[in-house]
Amino acid sequence: MIETNISRVIIQEYCKRLSEHLENDVVIVGAGPAGLAAGYYLAKAGAKVTIVEKKLSIGGGIWGGAAGYNIVTFEDKDILDEIGVATEKQENLYIADAIEFATALAYKAKQAGAEILNLTEAEDIILKDEIIQGIVVNNGAVRSLGLHVDPFCICAKYTIDATGHPAELVSILKKRKPKLFPQDLQEYFMNVETSETGVVEKTGEIFPGLFIAGMAVCDVYNLPRMGPIFGGMLKSGKKVAELINEKI
Amino acid sequence: MIETNISRVIIQEYCKRLSEHLENDVVIVGAGPAGLAAGYYLAKAGAKVTIVEKKLSIGGGIWGGAAGYNIVTFEDKDILDEIGVATEKQENLYIADAIEFATALAYKAKQAGAEILNLTEAEDIILKDEIIQGIVVNNGAVRSLGLHVDPFCICAKYTIDATGHPAELVSILKKRKPKLFPQDLQEYFMNVETSETGVVEKTGEIFPGLFIAGMAVCDVYNLPRMGPIFGGMLKSGKKVAELINEKI
Amino acid sequence: MIETNISRVIIQEYCKRLSEHLENDVVIVGAGPAGLAAGYYLAKAGAKVTIVEKKLSIGGGIWGGAAGYNIVTFEDKDILDEIGVATEKQENLYIADAIEFATALAYKAKQAGAEILNLTEAEDIILKDEIIQGIVVNNGAVRSLGLHVDPFCICAKYTIDATGHPAELVSILKKRKPKLFPQDLQEYFMNVETSETGVVEKTGEIFPGLFIAGMAVCDVYNLPRMGPIFGGMLKSGKKVAELINEKI
Amino acid sequence: MIETNISRVIIQEYCKRLSEHLENDVVIVGAGPAGLAAGYYLAKAGAKVTIVEKKLSIGGGIWGGAAGYNIVTFEDKDILDEIGVATEKQENLYIADAIEFATALAYKAKQAGAEILNLTEAEDIILKDEIIQGIVVNNGAVRSLGLHVDPFCICAKYTIDATGHPAELVSILKKRKPKLFPQDLQEYFMNVETSETGVVEKTGEIFPGLFIAGMAVCDVYNLPRMGPIFGGMLKSGKKVAELINEKI
Amino acid sequence: MIETNISRVIIQEYCKRLSEHLENDVVIVGAGPAGLAAGYYLAKAGAKVTIVEKKLSIGGGIWGGAAGYNIVTFEDKDILDEIGVATEKQENLYIADAIEFATALAYKAKQAGAEILNLTEAEDIILKDEIIQGIVVNNGAVRSLGLHVDPFCICAKYTIDATGHPAELVSILKKRKPKLFPQDLQEYFMNVETSETGVVEKTGEIFPGLFIAGMAVCDVYNLPRMGPIFGGMLKSGKKVAELINEKI
Amino acid sequence: MIETNISRVIIQEYCKRLSEHLENDVVIVGAGPAGLAAGYYLAKAGAKVTIVEKKLSIGGGIWGGAAGYNIVTFEDKDILDEIGVATEKQENLYIADAIEFATALAYKAKQAGAEILNLTEAEDIILKDEIIQGIVVNNGAVRSLGLHVDPFCICAKYTIDATGHPAELVSILKKRKPKLFPQDLQEYFMNVETSETGVVEKTGEIFPGLFIAGMAVCDVYNLPRMGPIFGGMLKSGKKVAELINEKI
Amino acid sequence: MIETNISRVIIQEYCKRLSEHLENDVVIVGAGPAGLAAGYYLAKAGAKVTIVEKKLSIGGGIWGGAAGYNIVTFEDKDILDEIGVATEKQENLYIADAIEFATALAYKAKQAGAEILNLTEAEDIILKDEIIQGIVVNNGAVRSLGLHVDPFCICAKYTIDATGHPAELVSILKKRKPKLFPQDLQEYFMNVETSETGVVEKTGEIFPGLFIAGMAVCDVYNLPRMGPIFGGMLKSGKKVAELINEKI
Amino acid sequence: MIETNISRVIIQEYCKRLSEHLENDVVIVGAGPAGLAAGYYLAKAGAKVTIVEKKLSIGGGIWGGAAGYNIVTFEDKDILDEIGVATEKQENLYIADAIEFATALAYKAKQAGAEILNLTEAEDIILKDEIIQGIVVNNGAVRSLGLHVDPFCICAKYTIDATGHPAELVSILKKRKPKLFPQDLQEYFMNVETSETGVVEKTGEIFPGLFIAGMAVCDVYNLPRMGPIFGGMLKSGKKVAELINEKI
Repeated sequence: MIETNISRVIIQEYCKRLSEHLENDVVIVGAGPAGLAAGYYLAKAGAKVTIVEKKLSIGGGIWGGAAGYNIVTFEDKDILDEIGVATEKQENLYIADAIEFATALAYKAKQAGAEILNLTEAEDIILKDEIIQGIVVNNGAVRSLGLHVDPFCICAKYTIDATGHPAELVSILKKRKPKLFPQDLQEYFMNVETSETGVVEKTGEIFPGLFIAGMAVCDVYNLPRMGPIFGGMLKSGKKVAELINEKI
Repeated sequence: MIETNISRVIIQEYCKRLSEHLENDVVIVGAGPAGLAAGYYLAKAGAKVTIVEKKLSIGGGIWGGAAGYNIVTFEDKDILDEIGVATEKQENLYIADAIEFATALAYKAKQAGAEILNLTEAEDIILKDEIIQGIVVNNGAVRSLGLHVDPFCICAKYTIDATGHPAELVSILKKRKPKLFPQDLQEYFMNVETSETGVVEKTGEIFPGLFIAGMAVCDVYNLPRMGPIFGGMLKSGKKVAELINEKI
Repeated sequence: MIETNISRVIIQEYCKRLSEHLENDVVIVGAGPAGLAAGYYLAKAGAKVTIVEKKLSIGGGIWGGAAGYNIVTFEDKDILDEIGVATEKQENLYIADAIEFATALAYKAKQAGAEILNLTEAEDIILKDEIIQGIVVNNGAVRSLGLHVDPFCICAKYTIDATGHPAELVSILKKRKPKLFPQDLQEYFMNVETSETGVVEKTGEIFPGLFIAGMAVCDVYNLPRMGPIFGGMLKSGKKVAELINEKI
Repeated sequence: MIETNISRVIIQEYCKRLSEHLENDVVIVGAGPAGLAAGYYLAKAGAKVTIVEKKLSIGGGIWGGAAGYNIVTFEDKDILDEIGVATEKQENLYIADAIEFATALAYKAKQAGAEILNLTEAEDIILKDEIIQGIVVNNGAVRSLGLHVDPFCICAKYTIDATGHPAELVSILKKRKPKLFPQDLQEYFMNVETSETGVVEKTGEIFPGLFIAGMAVCDVYNLPRMGPIFGGMLKSGKKVAELINEKI
Repeated sequence: MIETNISRVIIQEYCKRLSEHLENDVVIVGAGPAGLAAGYYLAKAGAKVTIVEKKLSIGGGIWGGAAGYNIVTFEDKDILDEIGVATEKQENLYIADAIEFATALAYKAKQAGAEILNLTEAEDIILKDEIIQGIVVNNGAVRSLGLHVDPFCICAKYTIDATGHPAELVSILKKRKPKLFPQDLQEYFMNVETSETGVVEKTGEIFPGLFIAGMAVCDVYNLPRMGPIFGGMLKSGKKVAELINEKI
Repeated sequence: MIETNISRVIIQEYCKRLSEHLENDVVIVGAGPAGLAAGYYLAKAGAKVTIVEKKLSIGGGIWGGAAGYNIVTFEDKDILDEIGVATEKQENLYIADAIEFATALAYKAKQAGAEILNLTEAEDIILKDEIIQGIVVNNGAVRSLGLHVDPFCICAKYTIDATGHPAELVSILKKRKPKLFPQDLQEYFMNVETSETGVVEKTGEIFPGLFIAGMAVCDVYNLPRMGPIFGGMLKSGKKVAELINEKI
Repeated sequence: MIETNISRVIIQEYCKRLSEHLENDVVIVGAGPAGLAAGYYLAKAGAKVTIVEKKLSIGGGIWGGAAGYNIVTFEDKDILDEIGVATEKQENLYIADAIEFATALAYKAKQAGAEILNLTEAEDIILKDEIIQGIVVNNGAVRSLGLHVDPFCICAKYTIDATGHPAELVSILKKRKPKLFPQDLQEYFMNVETSETGVVEKTGEIFPGLFIAGMAVCDVYNLPRMGPIFGGMLKSGKKVAELINEKI
Repeated sequence: MIETNISRVIIQEYCKRLSEHLENDVVIVGAGPAGLAAGYYLAKAGAKVTIVEKKLSIGGGIWGGAAGYNIVTFEDKDILDEIGVATEKQENLYIADAIEFATALAYKAKQAGAEILNLTEAEDIILKDEIIQGIVVNNGAVRSLGLHVDPFCICAKYTIDATGHPAELVSILKKRKPKLFPQDLQEYFMNVETSETGVVEKTGEIFPGLFIAGMAVCDVYNLPRMGPIFGGMLKSGKKVAELINEKI
């Protein structure tokens, strides 16, 4: 029956892809601007990469621009040109449509070969020999309902925490190893000038096997937040990809 | 200060675009597969078109594939080729990645020139001289909270209800003019064979100025539902665009 | 890595079983006493049978006995003896422990070969040539959250509505074909004497391809409800199995 | 069309006012009695001032009087006379209608030239060169729903925390710079005699660029709370206006 | 003790005012634009009038302008001049600040002598000799919590339903006397041109003792809705005041 | 151990009382003023009577007086004198303290011998030979949580619906036998004069075995409601007791 | 009109009683067993006493007995005899009906002259000259909804915290003066033998003007909890009354 | 009447069993894999054992396998063979159906003689002479609703905390005696190799009278978590049974 054919094809294809991506070069948690950019550059360079996103849709904080005014800004436009997003220059800033930016970035990451698992929530980390070796995930809907269900595992040579403000993987690390991060994980007051450069500079490995990119960097290093300007996010994603590509 | 420059640029650009799109050739309610396809083909043909979507992210029911297995199926692949979505043939079906499909479709609609207003919810219709002349909209967050706040208007020569199962505009029409639609607005039992062709055939104008496309067609004509196969949605969106393009 | 081995084994085994059970002799909706009994007797007789249950745990209304006093009663004990539940006779009634009864029944159904898909919710019916040919299902957690995600299909030669009081499949049938069931779907006032026999008598096929068993029978025929006495439920499940076994 | 004319006029006027008020002499957070009084006296003296209020309606804790008995009290009536609120003397207290007081105060502040942005929530502070230079705001409805959307900025030479008991801006300052405020931010036990004078005395600048007024003063200095007597609130608002006016 | 003096003064003053306003010339339900305008003109003409409002703050749908853009429009400005609201002419429309409009209107109604009981919800009507003689009210917080508590009564020679879209008093009347209102109580599609005049024309008495004003008129007569243009609301409120003043 | 002694004594005593009260002369649903008065007069006359109340505390709508002003009124005081409630005469009315009234009434009903089962919710009726023979009950907390748990039964020669406005038992009867009650079950507009006498007059048997008392009478006969005056409730409870006592 | 007469009488009587009880010898927070017992013995001895209770009904944790089995136990029965509660001796314990106990206790407290203000929540303490001089209260429904409304005050020579486990007044005291109570406020593991005597022994004044009684004593002194045995509660209430009576 | 016979039989049987199980050799909190295994082995060896479970259904985290893929894994199959669960070997792992495993385990525990009280929540511990002597329990539905109702007690020579991750009894112990457990109660990062052996090794008595088993062991000793592999849980349950059996 065609209805069960459709069902079978979907279930088996998903199962096949999921099984193939239980072991990766890189696993990225969070499909916002930094995570998608990292996934795009890693996949483009040939790495086997999986991005997990707990929500049904990807894009993180891009969609709403500022307070729902769905426009986003950038200080330069090289990466935007590369991924095919139209820009316009106004007052030394490049502006773009938030929806175009979100969709172009995810589309390019997919086309470059990154696997994106949406409705998949990271709930813990795999640690062996004091090296982070991947993540523990669950169904995003099962987690939202608080159902008592065990997770499964996705392992990787390198793990990236691109979960934005909550810095979810770093938070788990801090809870279990509080001496590693004596400071609170929080952004600092808004200051665009220092944040856009700071977030890129501090992008990198913070524990054997674990990298941070995007707003999670601000949380860990108490850097200023920057609002609806996304250049730093893209550059942080690109930088973390380059750092890992060198290691693979 | 750069922070206020960013804010000003965003607010003014959004305000400018919104003001320019208060009057349109076509306004589409719902940024799911049918609405985005309609927007893509209308904009590509030169129409001035605005798509409103009440949620923050676009894509409607595409993201989750079937039950969260994020793969989608199609009976043919012409439109997918046109919008740049990779497909693979399995058991007489073309399969594609749900995230790639959702983002490619929205990205192409944006690039073709469609304006997409997310977090914008249609709450009523403008009716003058027994012709529907546009929609009444509000902030999606304000509506979700049930705040007592007045709406504003987006007018258009033609309005498309692409809201999927709720058939939101038709429901309002039925509530005020119950004789127009004596039947319940509901899909029929699942049957892929008859639904994929039926939904395209019945796509069209159901009241002066109001067209229906996508699953809303199934609701209005009590056609079978079809599940995670999206060919009919795309063809319905394309057909409604062609019908309106002929009129403009 | 052992963690990904465990994950792979589970995902692939589930996918294999699910794929194998997309086409069945019988699909049963609801893993309460009637659905589990039907599944047990059908599987025992050699039918390929799948039971879907929207909750995470099975057992329906058995667990709480009466108002949480976790004891259940029966008018005779033949089926209980067969599935290995200890009983004691008091005042012409056989009593058993509710937890023992729930777990024994599901355990025997599984051992007899029935596949049970928990956290799987039926949301619609497949209808072709005016014959019901299976069900449309979704992830139970996705449905509880109201996420906009398409379903998949499980087809069967015969479908049993064993959803208890909501009579979920019959309700969908009635909504689409109101003339079939002009009466409200509801139980009648409590009366144990007439309900225990009535529910078994009326168990059967109510539409080509669709059978009803258990409390759904009371709803459809407005029979009296009976409270924490489960003999009728078991006999109804057994009867529907026999009726279908004759047809296979 | 008149409907779109109305929409355009409103959107463009709002956008114009908002753009003009992204840079201010003073930004006040909270449109309760202290914030509105500060706005009134600052605007009257010629300052460019914006008041942001997260709720849809202004007035803070005025509306309900005491426990919903909508009468408010004052120890003297000079400011009330100035803003046109009728009073009556009883037992050495002046009483007024809570609704008259709330509306007169906001009305006078607006007429004096203060811009009031309701449904606008402060979520952070701009800090540069260790001087607070304004606030980071978002749509109040977007924040109430917890949507993941970036904010925008409103800068000012001076910022006033008039958020009442939560002392929202001071709380953010304390979270990031805990050594500044080693004490808990909380009011002390009720004592009208000492609180009405204390709150005015302690009104002032607590960090370069940040002033406090109204109940936030009680929180920061652990002063007694005072209940439905509003003289201190008005005087605190007037005092903070005078302190800032001297600086501008 | 001053604390109990404040409490006593407030409780006794509220009790006195409430007792005095249990019997009125006119009771108005709803403190939105029409209700406040009616209250202002009635009180100004010397009637004893009480306005009850279930929320803590007054103003109804004024505060948010259109979709939160807090600007409101009018076709002429006579009443605005009378109540002291600044206007500016743009595209044949007068625009005003929503907050200034809401507060000025309530302030003038209070000063003219109307009693406003906020946090007071009408839950029923008093009917004697087939004449509506007042309303049955309860504490708004008690009602929101669904507590089981009896109401009290406020009687009046004339009662005005100015509750806006829900038309709360008319709904109660319709529920008990369905033949009076065979039609559904609902607004019609948006059409500013016909609604602004229609709402004023149809303002009046619909049952002995019960008048309707504002959006409730649209509901009862199925007139078009009009969005954020408030001239009709004010004129409807003024008209109902004139109609009643003639009778007193 | 004393802790288990206490537990055992409580559980066994409750079980004993509950078992003894599974069969009664009269079962009353609802422990508000009418239900408690009926229970008091029935028990005093020697009937075996059980009152079930779904909430944890008894008293129904007595506690809050009017809108939380915890005073109640009566037209005469005979029954109050009998149950020991202090009254004071004001304006032809007797007033009493709401808390004193609620507790005295329940206390006297208990002392007269009525069994009160709180946290026990009636969810259905037992009907045999077209005579109502008792009720179907469940744990009130289990019901509030919507848990899927079977009920148990309490039978009686006569059943009283004293559930107030919802008229819960009559509603179930109407749902199953709609021809018995073609009218909506609802009170009429408030009118104290006609309601206080009407509710007593209409108190009585409305179906073999089922009596109504208190506000449920107003619902069934569409009588006016009366607010915080409780004489009619007490007399209705007394009358239903007398009617049943004659039959026993 | 009789409807407004009833309203006026109730409002004025409540207002009169409330005004009279703004100043008291003793104010008790919490109308559970200890608070009601204290109120009974204080009022009986002639003190002017007000009990405030945040819920609509009084009785605290009495109603449900143990886990809903509505029986309560006591080690002796002197106080029960005094307030007229029937007891039965089982296994060295006296048992009583929970509903009879709750209502008799409140009824006797009222009759002895205690004023009980239900739906009235204590939210703070009045402190002057380092002596607690009463409480700050609000409408219980307003508080449950989190509405922003100021409180009013009830002063007293002596204040009793009889709020049970939360020890609400002591918690406020501890939050403001943490050095007074360096320990956590919590009960200890259950142990009936030591708790029943301990709670009475430790009943007393813990800060100038503030007494504790009932379970709050266990919290403050980390005494064992005791479950559904209420002798200690009554004795603690009686003891605190005696301690205060000596001082008045 | 048969309906009351059924009710009486159930209530009396439950009461009898509950009374008999107020005193036990062992009480186990939590009916997940470890608790059920412990109950099975203890009962099989002749101990009088009661398992309390706060939910209506038993099985804990077994039902959902991994992320809802309802398959579970084991490193060996001895215990599974013993309780009659079918297994299949894949990649050095034994796999089983989650539903079969959950129901077989509970069924065998019941048949071995363990009493299981579902919908029964442990809320505290009994401590006498510094020995834990049982638990304090309440109705699970009453607790979920937060109703103010006292608990009852179940005493035992030995108590097992098998509550999984929350380690509920140990958490209460730690809250009252913080020095006993200076560390946070939390699992460590996932690592199947070390966790499966560690959890069994550390199973044992941690305070006089209190044992821990299953995931609670990981929490207390900060051992790695292990996901959907259940061998360690079963062995931990078996070990704790053996340790206690030696003592009885």
